[in-house]
Amino acid sequence: MSALLIHRDGAIERWTLNEPATRNALSDAMVLALFEACLRAKADASLRGVVLAGADGAFCAGGSLGGFASAIGQALPPGEADPLVALNRGFGDLLHALIGLPQWLMCAVDGPAMGGGFGLVCCADVVIATERSAFATPEVTLGLPPAQIAPFVWRRLGDATARQCLLSGTRWTAREAQAVGLVNTVVADDALDAAVAYAAKALGRAAPGALAATKQLLHRLHQHLPDLRDEAAIAFANALRGPEAAAGLAAFASKQPAPWAKGRDT
Amino acid sequence: MSALLIHRDGAIERWTLNEPATRNALSDAMVLALFEACLRAKADASLRGVVLAGADGAFCAGGSLGGFASAIGQALPPGEADPLVALNRGFGDLLHALIGLPQWLMCAVDGPAMGGGFGLVCCADVVIATERSAFATPEVTLGLPPAQIAPFVWRRLGDATARQCLLSGTRWTAREAQAVGLVNTVVADDALDAAVAYAAKALGRAAPGALAATKQLLHRLHQHLPDLRDEAAIAFANALRGPEAAAGLAAFASKQPAPWAKGRDT
Amino acid sequence: MSALLIHRDGAIERWTLNEPATRNALSDAMVLALFEACLRAKADASLRGVVLAGADGAFCAGGSLGGFASAIGQALPPGEADPLVALNRGFGDLLHALIGLPQWLMCAVDGPAMGGGFGLVCCADVVIATERSAFATPEVTLGLPPAQIAPFVWRRLGDATARQCLLSGTRWTAREAQAVGLVNTVVADDALDAAVAYAAKALGRAAPGALAATKQLLHRLHQHLPDLRDEAAIAFANALRGPEAAAGLAAFASKQPAPWAKGRDT
Repeated sequence: MSALLIHRDGAIERWTLNEPATRNALSDAMVLALFEACLRAKADASLRGVVLAGADGAFCAGGSLGGFASAIGQALPPGEADPLVALNRGFGDLLHALIGLPQWLMCAVDGPAMGGGFGLVCCADVVIATERSAFATPEVTLGLPPAQIAPFVWRRLGDATARQCLLSGTRWTAREAQAVGLVNTVVADDALDAAVAYAAKALGRAAPGALAATKQLLHRLHQHLPDLRDEAAIAFANALRGPEAAAGLAAFASKQPAPWAKGRDT
Repeated sequence: MSALLIHRDGAIERWTLNEPATRNALSDAMVLALFEACLRAKADASLRGVVLAGADGAFCAGGSLGGFASAIGQALPPGEADPLVALNRGFGDLLHALIGLPQWLMCAVDGPAMGGGFGLVCCADVVIATERSAFATPEVTLGLPPAQIAPFVWRRLGDATARQCLLSGTRWTAREAQAVGLVNTVVADDALDAAVAYAAKALGRAAPGALAATKQLLHRLHQHLPDLRDEAAIAFANALRGPEAAAGLAAFASKQPAPWAKGRDT
Repeated sequence: MSALLIHRDGAIERWTLNEPATRNALSDAMVLALFEACLRAKADASLRGVVLAGADGAFCAGGSLGGFASAIGQALPPGEADPLVALNRGFGDLLHALIGLPQWLMCAVDGPAMGGGFGLVCCADVVIATERSAFATPEVTLGLPPAQIAPFVWRRLGDATARQCLLSGTRWTAREAQAVGLVNTVVADDALDAAVAYAAKALGRAAPGALAATKQLLHRLHQHLPDLRDEAAIAFANALRGPEAAAGLAAFASKQPAPWAKGRDT
């Protein structure tokens, strides 16, 4: 079974995150497959748009630690290069590739879009979500910074709204996500495919070359921003190896409040 | 008949786009007259505000190709400087001059504000629109990038909303334009003059020097952005001389869907 | 009586602006006390959050001229360094310190938040306001630019909304402030404490180190912006010493319209 299903229909591809057992959490294989799909798409002049979706009633449950679960709370021996930094940086590379696609990118969200999945959504040109979808960046509640996604959340939602979700992990319904500008259209749970087809038709009125040129101009307006991929990766790896993540992830696994949330009726 | 009517009432000027036959499309003469009006206004310490409006039930139908209709789809001989680049860059210069006015700028929109006209609206401090107004940037549907206006749309609407309108050409009612922050106030079709007078009174409470100093500070917050006028002009000219614009503009003229929109029930 | 009351409850501090006679206008003593509180907070690893509030039914009525009332409308002797520049720059330093706090910052607004007080609100991560609160930046109506606060208003509200309030001094109700994104939650006048406790509990789910790392990443996204503190201070001092401020502040004191607003039924 592939972590990413790619289905082509004419000039449009549907990329389906496909690890239902983890609600399509971003495994190493999935991140790599998405990145490769972006590289291929960038070179494919016959491709006009991409619909990114999740399998089986979830969009994407967030990040995944791959083979690094044993690193939680464990300091790196001094002088060693941290493979976690490269892993996390790779996710930042994926977000850069997604937002840099010359084709239109639509996210079709049905179910939870959490953490890294929320970050994927922020790279889309158009976001459609079913009523039952939910959106949150719970990283800080687990003891981790939402490191690679922060710049993309900030770019899509603006500073005030980015602070609101990133610093508290607030969970939004689809309607709430629409009110803050994360979601463009909310539809009934059984109307997602029709809404995606409708939105694709609207985007299909755009000439492919003109659309790519427009995305390139918008992209240029962000090139003065600092590239935070490396420092975000270091911040993430440091946090994962520190005491907060150890306590936060253990509390989450045992369905207990994290130690810093105790006594607050959370 | 002048392409731009300038009427002064005390310390306020009303600039009326005046080419009703084309619903006030931005002719070369109109762009030049607007640019000259900006230069004059910048040096006029007695002028406190400008109301920009359109004649005869339209705000501005968008760009105009001036004498360059024959360039559509026609590659430039190698080594020749493209006069289309200079023409398009001149429109960017106008947008820069408008947003840099030391006086307040209000757009009073009644009817369509399309393409370049949408760009003019994005340069205003305050935007009032009648119920029957409509807003869109249909450039990509014609095979052209919304080149000079893209940075101003992005600046006024933010990244997510800018992508939404620029990449699909979606048409917004006045209420929809208000919901995304393009329009400040929507009024009944016969109440525009009263609403403009009311808003001018509110702006009249601001001391002219303090208002100019404030606009200068806000302007400074954008000076780190790349100046995209030249590359936008090149992108526009290249697109106009390419196959997409030839097909898109021909389809538009014959009221047919463009070739890239075929088979999609557009 | 202290201009700033600091009360600690566990890991959270409540900072109360406390000059009720002036509706907590920003006196020199208050600005200094706030700045020192920020420095101390930055070094206090046991502090997790700050609630900023005002005493006695007002949040903060705005700036205060301290000992410089005699400077209004008075040109500085040539060659002399203007102490007003340093004073105003000091307020900019406070805003920088507030927005740079590694802990969460919540503003609990009950009553007016005007001018400089509006600027304080723009530095918060979360803003709760009672129904009876009111928000405005009336500086320009007095002949002064909203100098130090402009970048923070722009950062929180975006360009279009910042222009709307900064250039006209429009007064917003709490609901209106919520609609533009300045306020996160509006509550009944007697429900502020409960709402603050509830929001603090939500922020308490965030691990302190992860929250600080996230704020640092968001902060990095603004570091490319020009530092306007010096030029804002010069613009402010020049305006205060010029004729507009003299006329505007005198008119305000005598409850008359300013000369530039005459004949406009303001």
